[in-house]
Amino acid sequence: MKIVLIGSGNVATQMGLALYAIGEEITQVFSRDITNAIILAQKLNAIPISNLQNVNAEADLYIIAVKDDAIENVVLQLKDVTGLVVHTAGSVDIAVISKHIKNSGIFYPLQTFSKTKDVNFENIPLCIEADDENQLSVLKKLAKKLSNKVYVLNGEKRKVLHLAAVFAGNFTNHLYTLANQILSNEGLDFDIIRPLIAETAQKIEHNLPENVQTGPAFRKDDLTLINHLNALENNPELFNIYQILSNSIKLVHKY
Amino acid sequence: MKIVLIGSGNVATQMGLALYAIGEEITQVFSRDITNAIILAQKLNAIPISNLQNVNAEADLYIIAVKDDAIENVVLQLKDVTGLVVHTAGSVDIAVISKHIKNSGIFYPLQTFSKTKDVNFENIPLCIEADDENQLSVLKKLAKKLSNKVYVLNGEKRKVLHLAAVFAGNFTNHLYTLANQILSNEGLDFDIIRPLIAETAQKIEHNLPENVQTGPAFRKDDLTLINHLNALENNPELFNIYQILSNSIKLVHKY
Repeated sequence: MKIVLIGSGNVATQMGLALYAIGEEITQVFSRDITNAIILAQKLNAIPISNLQNVNAEADLYIIAVKDDAIENVVLQLKDVTGLVVHTAGSVDIAVISKHIKNSGIFYPLQTFSKTKDVNFENIPLCIEADDENQLSVLKKLAKKLSNKVYVLNGEKRKVLHLAAVFAGNFTNHLYTLANQILSNEGLDFDIIRPLIAETAQKIEHNLPENVQTGPAFRKDDLTLINHLNALENNPELFNIYQILSNSIKLVHKY
Repeated sequence: MKIVLIGSGNVATQMGLALYAIGEEITQVFSRDITNAIILAQKLNAIPISNLQNVNAEADLYIIAVKDDAIENVVLQLKDVTGLVVHTAGSVDIAVISKHIKNSGIFYPLQTFSKTKDVNFENIPLCIEADDENQLSVLKKLAKKLSNKVYVLNGEKRKVLHLAAVFAGNFTNHLYTLANQILSNEGLDFDIIRPLIAETAQKIEHNLPENVQTGPAFRKDDLTLINHLNALENNPELFNIYQILSNSIKLVHKY
């Protein structure tokens, strides 16, 4: 399969590396910034381009991994291609492609990516979608080469999944950040809390999270809740977050 | 060292098992419920008791691992002992013990425990405190046998640490629960999001969380933020949590 990779950010980098590793041919890497295109293209033995007018019109698959609001602009510049055009976004409708292009699809990896931390694609859920059965089967075949966890999901379910991922991924990382803020204000190192974070995540590998909840709000420890809120009284932002999440724990666990 | 373990919950169970594993002698296990005392005492080759009047007055160390608001009541029943009395709570002052008992201390493991999931104490930060240098050195010696991560912390710092732990542990587990709620409303299994949770936690093993934040609020993707809030408009609780955490991400990352 000849693949053109459009984008050079976290998702494009990790997906490009994974496709290259299973022997797919990446013909071109596009980035508006030619330096970024070159850096990634070198790793994938591909040709870097920074202008979509130079895109190879004969590729089999075009993977768009750019910011959500830039996808449609890319699609408009791919009008002449005949291959399959997919995007990798959780919350963008397939119509953004299909209203301009005949062969369209979705290739959404449910994971958090960094350019510098390689990931094992085998365990990454890949959510695919296509309007046409043939295109779906092409995507399914490719997805199964990359991952053991391939899901065919429509746009509505994919968007719900992305929303859940914001809670379970983005928001939890931000809670780690807030914890680090609290610690560093007292001269405590983030290292002291890393084992707790690791164990909290490991616990739900074989349990549902609602069955392993702990903490003052869960165990109805009002004294600690009040003490914690008092400790946060000069920080209205953390105070509000503490209160709203504690109340939510009480609500879910029928305090 | 002769140790009396007071409590039979998650902390008492895991700490008892860890102490037993390194060869310490647990002489008694107390629980108000004799059945619970018997279950844990059997694992520790100890004598179960359900009345503190029967406590061995000759032990070297009394570890109180009961609910925060029950600690002082236990202490009052230990007035005649001469050994060192410690509690394992993050947010309870040492004075709750020291105002009644001469030899007092803190032995606080910063971790989330379950009765049924054994943990490796070697990697668990153990925070110790004592009014007296001799008692501190006794606690330090024991702590270092259990863990490679021993911290001498005063009460103020320990309380801050506990507060940070609520954010990084209890609240993140609750976000997993909310994600599962969102998924199951659409008939999606929690399994699909487990790899994301694992990777999110693994990322901060060698990074600070503020340096690896991703997601719509971080990347200024207002369209997705609005779509997500619209999707939550019938669930004011999740709507509020989404909004307050997204705003907090914007604030920290100078959106």
